[in-house]
Amino acid sequence: MKSHTEYLTMNLPTTTGFINITPQVDQAIRKSGVQEGLVLCNSMHITASVFINDDERGLHHDFGVWLEKLAPFNADPNVYHHNRTGEDNADAHLKRQIMGREVVVAITKGRLDFGPWEQIFYGEFDGKRAKKVLVKIIGE
Amino acid sequence: MKSHTEYLTMNLPTTTGFINITPQVDQAIRKSGVQEGLVLCNSMHITASVFINDDERGLHHDFGVWLEKLAPFNADPNVYHHNRTGEDNADAHLKRQIMGREVVVAITKGRLDFGPWEQIFYGEFDGKRAKKVLVKIIGE
Amino acid sequence: MKSHTEYLTMNLPTTTGFINITPQVDQAIRKSGVQEGLVLCNSMHITASVFINDDERGLHHDFGVWLEKLAPFNADPNVYHHNRTGEDNADAHLKRQIMGREVVVAITKGRLDFGPWEQIFYGEFDGKRAKKVLVKIIGE
Repeated sequence: MKSHTEYLTMNLPTTTGFINITPQVDQAIRKSGVQEGLVLCNSMHITASVFINDDERGLHHDFGVWLEKLAPFNADPNVYHHNRTGEDNADAHLKRQIMGREVVVAITKGRLDFGPWEQIFYGEFDGKRAKKVLVKIIGE
Repeated sequence: MKSHTEYLTMNLPTTTGFINITPQVDQAIRKSGVQEGLVLCNSMHITASVFINDDERGLHHDFGVWLEKLAPFNADPNVYHHNRTGEDNADAHLKRQIMGREVVVAITKGRLDFGPWEQIFYGEFDGKRAKKVLVKIIGE
Repeated sequence: MKSHTEYLTMNLPTTTGFINITPQVDQAIRKSGVQEGLVLCNSMHITASVFINDDERGLHHDFGVWLEKLAPFNADPNVYHHNRTGEDNADAHLKRQIMGREVVVAITKGRLDFGPWEQIFYGEFDGKRAKKVLVKIIGE
């Protein structure tokens, strides 16, 4: 069994945003030499997500509006007790639960075994600082 | 390390619905000959889900009502910008984020290592056309 | 390839709650002897979750309030058809979809390859009885 580990650094200038990281994951798979296996790709931070969906600007706008509706930002520590710690990012912890922490993708014949529109995104909900994404590949 | 890859074709006559695909995943594991390992099962399309829950008709009805409440269908491109592309399925992309893209299940002694009620479902949110589910097995 | 399987028993005296199971997963990895690989950790029951987020009491309170808002308890079988089976836990099946069934975590140099605040939690939404969590480790 082969394994390969990479850490990507994300640094969004905005609080929220989505970045297509498929090229970096693709490149990691090529470096690994794995032909058949699995790649795990996860946010190492708990106010961010890694997920798979469409690379379409309108949809990303819709994700932002929708997440704000389901888990609105509110710095008030009476609304979110997490904000009693001095932070104001409780909503980001909730948004990340909806979008998910990680994806696991099949590697077949040395490539991401993807459907026609699948792309891997980093989703940031509490940005303006550096965060890491882990890419772990195992297989043969 | 052994690996085995299968593609299931789903084709629902309706926009939304849930299909129990546990028998197909079970069969793929038997074909693979893997005794100890992992099986990844994911939708290859971004308006559909693979998830694990109860095979109970009432619950599936409840999932439908609940998802429509959290992420309602609306073809209006002023409501969902994704629909400015000419599509009307933005809600399906959101519903899939709640239900998830994939499951990873343990294989122990050659079988799905499941709790008493766990069953694997394909969840369709934008049907009436053929879509694929990937089953990837690795182990020994 | 090595593999290792453990079953943890959870038994919450309350209907809902969150338990940090990182120490048990850590210990399972040490027992496995795996240096590079993946660990799958999932609830074996469909009204409970395994997820990764912050070990902060205020946030757990917020999760509880938020989930109750998105998927409220209601025993009425006219509200949730699942409750026509004689159960009253339809809301717990929905809450678990938001929080997720499983996590997959990288093992690097024999340890959980975690970011600074990542911790693994069991999330219970229909407690007062024993349930199981599966820990499956594969790698080398």
